[in-house]
Amino acid sequence: MSWTNSRNAELKQRAAQVIPGGMYGHESTALLPADFPQFFRRAEGTRLWDADDNEYIDYMCAYGPNLLGYRQPEVDAAVRAQMQLGDTLTGPSEIMVTLAEDMVAMLSPADWAMFCKNGTDATSMATVIARAHTGKRKILVGKGVYHGAAPWCTPGPAGILSEDRGHIVYYRDQDPQSLAEAVAAHAGDIAAVFATPFRHETFRDQSEPDATFAREARRLCDAEGAVLVLDEVRAAFRLSRDGAWAALGVKPDLTSIGKVIGNGQPISALVGLEPLRKAASSVYVTGSFWFSAVPMAAAVATLKIIRESDYLERLQRTGRLLREGLAAQAAAHGFALRQTGPVQMPQILFEDDPEMRLGYFWAAAAVRRGVYLHPYHNMFINAALTETDVAQTLEATDAAFTALKAQDRAGLPLERPVVRDRLERAALLSA
Amino acid sequence: MSWTNSRNAELKQRAAQVIPGGMYGHESTALLPADFPQFFRRAEGTRLWDADDNEYIDYMCAYGPNLLGYRQPEVDAAVRAQMQLGDTLTGPSEIMVTLAEDMVAMLSPADWAMFCKNGTDATSMATVIARAHTGKRKILVGKGVYHGAAPWCTPGPAGILSEDRGHIVYYRDQDPQSLAEAVAAHAGDIAAVFATPFRHETFRDQSEPDATFAREARRLCDAEGAVLVLDEVRAAFRLSRDGAWAALGVKPDLTSIGKVIGNGQPISALVGLEPLRKAASSVYVTGSFWFSAVPMAAAVATLKIIRESDYLERLQRTGRLLREGLAAQAAAHGFALRQTGPVQMPQILFEDDPEMRLGYFWAAAAVRRGVYLHPYHNMFINAALTETDVAQTLEATDAAFTALKAQDRAGLPLERPVVRDRLERAALLSA
Repeated sequence: MSWTNSRNAELKQRAAQVIPGGMYGHESTALLPADFPQFFRRAEGTRLWDADDNEYIDYMCAYGPNLLGYRQPEVDAAVRAQMQLGDTLTGPSEIMVTLAEDMVAMLSPADWAMFCKNGTDATSMATVIARAHTGKRKILVGKGVYHGAAPWCTPGPAGILSEDRGHIVYYRDQDPQSLAEAVAAHAGDIAAVFATPFRHETFRDQSEPDATFAREARRLCDAEGAVLVLDEVRAAFRLSRDGAWAALGVKPDLTSIGKVIGNGQPISALVGLEPLRKAASSVYVTGSFWFSAVPMAAAVATLKIIRESDYLERLQRTGRLLREGLAAQAAAHGFALRQTGPVQMPQILFEDDPEMRLGYFWAAAAVRRGVYLHPYHNMFINAALTETDVAQTLEATDAAFTALKAQDRAGLPLERPVVRDRLERAALLSA
Repeated sequence: MSWTNSRNAELKQRAAQVIPGGMYGHESTALLPADFPQFFRRAEGTRLWDADDNEYIDYMCAYGPNLLGYRQPEVDAAVRAQMQLGDTLTGPSEIMVTLAEDMVAMLSPADWAMFCKNGTDATSMATVIARAHTGKRKILVGKGVYHGAAPWCTPGPAGILSEDRGHIVYYRDQDPQSLAEAVAAHAGDIAAVFATPFRHETFRDQSEPDATFAREARRLCDAEGAVLVLDEVRAAFRLSRDGAWAALGVKPDLTSIGKVIGNGQPISALVGLEPLRKAASSVYVTGSFWFSAVPMAAAVATLKIIRESDYLERLQRTGRLLREGLAAQAAAHGFALRQTGPVQMPQILFEDDPEMRLGYFWAAAAVRRGVYLHPYHNMFINAALTETDVAQTLEATDAAFTALKAQDRAGLPLERPVVRDRLERAALLSA
């Protein structure tokens, strides 16, 4: 096997000198199997090359942003054309208006749109707008649900005060009864209820979008005068060309959208319904690069492809092929997988794998065979993925299952002791 | 005069339908004279064209990011080369390590670096790291000083709870005595003291970097075990090739840097001293696009120019030419200007102008003559500005002074009633 990682190891050593912990945030490999590459060199379509030039079929898609394939030609052309004009200027470019018009035309829960950079910008803005709109304080969020990395929501406790979350109230994610109880407990002081379109947290099985929960969340918010915020930062445009709950007949008041809008260009958005417009225009939110034109040009091009192509049906088809292929392979090798959530956003966990020794070994074996799979985070299908790519993926995973089966199970390494803690926390959330 | 704004007016009408308030944040023209263009089409070097294709010599530089001139060729080439490889990937590119090494090599208060997108990301991260480091709660900030637009610091009160600022303590900006009193009042519970390199707030005269204040802030933090955070988001690399207080012999523990690092590409940073490294590696902070490679490639190219060119001396020379030229013009026309702060970041206010009627009329007259000046926000000189550009600027401002002098002063319009309120607030801060 030609897979090597010496350049990556050298970069990690250099990084450890000048970056705290060598790397930080969601793209840190600190919790991943030791062989996973930390640094990458290039990407094209559905392929990714690491710093050692190992090639991967990439199922992480930059943790979401890559919807149409890396360096998608029409989006890249739009980026280059806008670069010739200008990017970060003394005011927005006219393309900001076009982009807002496109969002409002495409999304049933959008009467207006605001743009920012990262998902955390959009979700944090939603809390401020909801409080301005209602004059109330409490923000209800699903326990263990990721809404960003600001003090009110970051999953890491270091440096966070209890006061940062003094008005954050937790309900059991995707559970209408638990939400109803939380609403009752804080009635009269609820600014917003946050939800995700379906459960897509690390170390846990995913759920599917749930009409019962969505409708109950809407009903409770209406009864209470609270703002319903649907956090689609991770799922936007992978489930639907409209909002993720449009098919369920539920309109959130505010929808945070991120990652995919510019197919990798840095832009996120908060869209909302008419009654929230006044509060949205009353808050002071901004950022040095929120009004840059190039990511907006990329977004206009991306949204056009979303409207006019069969990208969504392709995501569904290749996602289903992968899921069915893996299930058959696992069974043939005597393993059982829990493949959960929409096929376009696969989460793959092993049954009977309390410390993830199977999942970690298998994902690392796939990585060394040119398929980048994640052992604990949901993955993402992109529209450049072909049936041939899936077939090539399945060859690698078949070899990975074979390698796993050949291992003495008791001797499988526990890659990261901290994983056990994460799993226990996830189990508590599901209990 | 060929200046027109019909296209801008049409875009503003369309924007009002789909963007709350028609525009938001620091690039909104809501507080500016009515003629100021809201939307722009393109930029090159020191020139900016609005949606109606009016050309301006731009003294706002995108509110800072444009340090070397729009579309600076070497930075643009680095952007294009990195785009061929990849931008937002499943992990950082190796250029992240190079960029962190460059920052550490160039900045005396940097033993490590973390990258993010906007200034608010960097300042908010500093609060979390300071609290993780000290285990304490209070953050001391100068009253009225802008450190970003998150709930703990945004200047807009809508949607903000008193609890969001329950542990924010205000001292009189740049005043060592006031800072000492605030430290004494909260001794034992102070996580951080924030400062800016000099005063550069809207509607107020600027100050110069002040060694007495800087040294006293350092001394108080040392005595108290608090973290000294220097917020250089606005001023970075316009005063110095090193940190802004390096020339004063003062090293902050953490320095937030923004706007200029990628000459307009979206990237900001937090750098810090060795004792803060452990806390920095303990916090969970991240964003979908924080690790994108293209802005880092732009930053490596920008920092190289900062190290190797005379850009800083050019900023100082053209900034001084402009200041001296304007002072002479104003005197010749019978006006007195308050031109404050470093010449590279001009703030221009009129004496004896309690409601800014003079300043607003004069800036609008300059805009209609092809020079984009700001009536209440500090401006920014970029390194593409030539002595010829300054001469052309002074022709336009001379005509603007002539037009102002011809006006019946009592009949000058009060462009925005809210300006009076802002001025009163600024005056209170200075009292």
